[in-house]
Amino acid sequence: MTDKPKDPIRPTDDKARAQARFLINAARFAALAVLDPETGAPLVTRIALVPGPDGAPLTLISTLSAHTGALDANPTCSLLIGEPGAKGDPLTHPRLSMQAEAMPANKEALRQHYLNLYPKAQLYYDFSDFRLIRFAPRSALLNGGFGKAFRLTNGDLVAEQTQPNGLTR
Amino acid sequence: MTDKPKDPIRPTDDKARAQARFLINAARFAALAVLDPETGAPLVTRIALVPGPDGAPLTLISTLSAHTGALDANPTCSLLIGEPGAKGDPLTHPRLSMQAEAMPANKEALRQHYLNLYPKAQLYYDFSDFRLIRFAPRSALLNGGFGKAFRLTNGDLVAEQTQPNGLTR
Repeated sequence: MTDKPKDPIRPTDDKARAQARFLINAARFAALAVLDPETGAPLVTRIALVPGPDGAPLTLISTLSAHTGALDANPTCSLLIGEPGAKGDPLTHPRLSMQAEAMPANKEALRQHYLNLYPKAQLYYDFSDFRLIRFAPRSALLNGGFGKAFRLTNGDLVAEQTQPNGLTR
Repeated sequence: MTDKPKDPIRPTDDKARAQARFLINAARFAALAVLDPETGAPLVTRIALVPGPDGAPLTLISTLSAHTGALDANPTCSLLIGEPGAKGDPLTHPRLSMQAEAMPANKEALRQHYLNLYPKAQLYYDFSDFRLIRFAPRSALLNGGFGKAFRLTNGDLVAEQTQPNGLTR
């Protein structure tokens, strides 16, 4: 047995919070991990993503997809946010591993907000088999590059004074 | 209650198998979903990835990372393979959602294979806190773009006649 290595997590500061919020605001897609309702095993898929008015991410997903059924069975999930571009080392590109609870969002009230950020979705936004989901962050791990890891709370990521459906007051 | 929509999965054909193997062979990173050992919730992070000699993906991961501890506790995991480039719609870019079991691979025997495909790893390949892991596929969902979904088996993805450590005979 080797000694347990020391925790590589740094104390969270405003720069880390700003970087995490920047990643959420810039993302238009993400990897979503859910629990497979038949086996309990993880399943990771790609979804569309936009920041909600309070900073918590929103997605528009089809009831035909495997992840939607899984979130119905268990809303506990995780998002990987911050996709590398074509250039540079993907493992030094900043990214956020968020643990979250998926919950229904107000599709009608957030229609213009979503479509402003994701215009292409106007082709299917109003289809009845598409739902708007809000990811309420529980916690997140920010990897800002080698040796720059931070653990963030819900309060580090989301504005206060929001309603559960993702609307700001 | 609405009627349950029909299964959008198409019958698996050689073209789907070839596309899935192409995605695995081309990937140098992926999203990895594991189960958080403390909560059982999913956690998704980014890892390096190369195809193994038998087609099953390999990664070199640090024991300092959260996913390594999670895989020690439960090797059941999922990979999202097939990252979009800077251009085009990420949701129409083909990708593979694989469900897999993580297992130790022979780090010494696969050293040159890994470094040929991922030269930058020579900086840390031999560090004792880095392990080589093989992902033995259980099944996978190939999303080849809108309306082109396929369910694949281990046999669709990995060459026969391989040893458990990822070496071909």
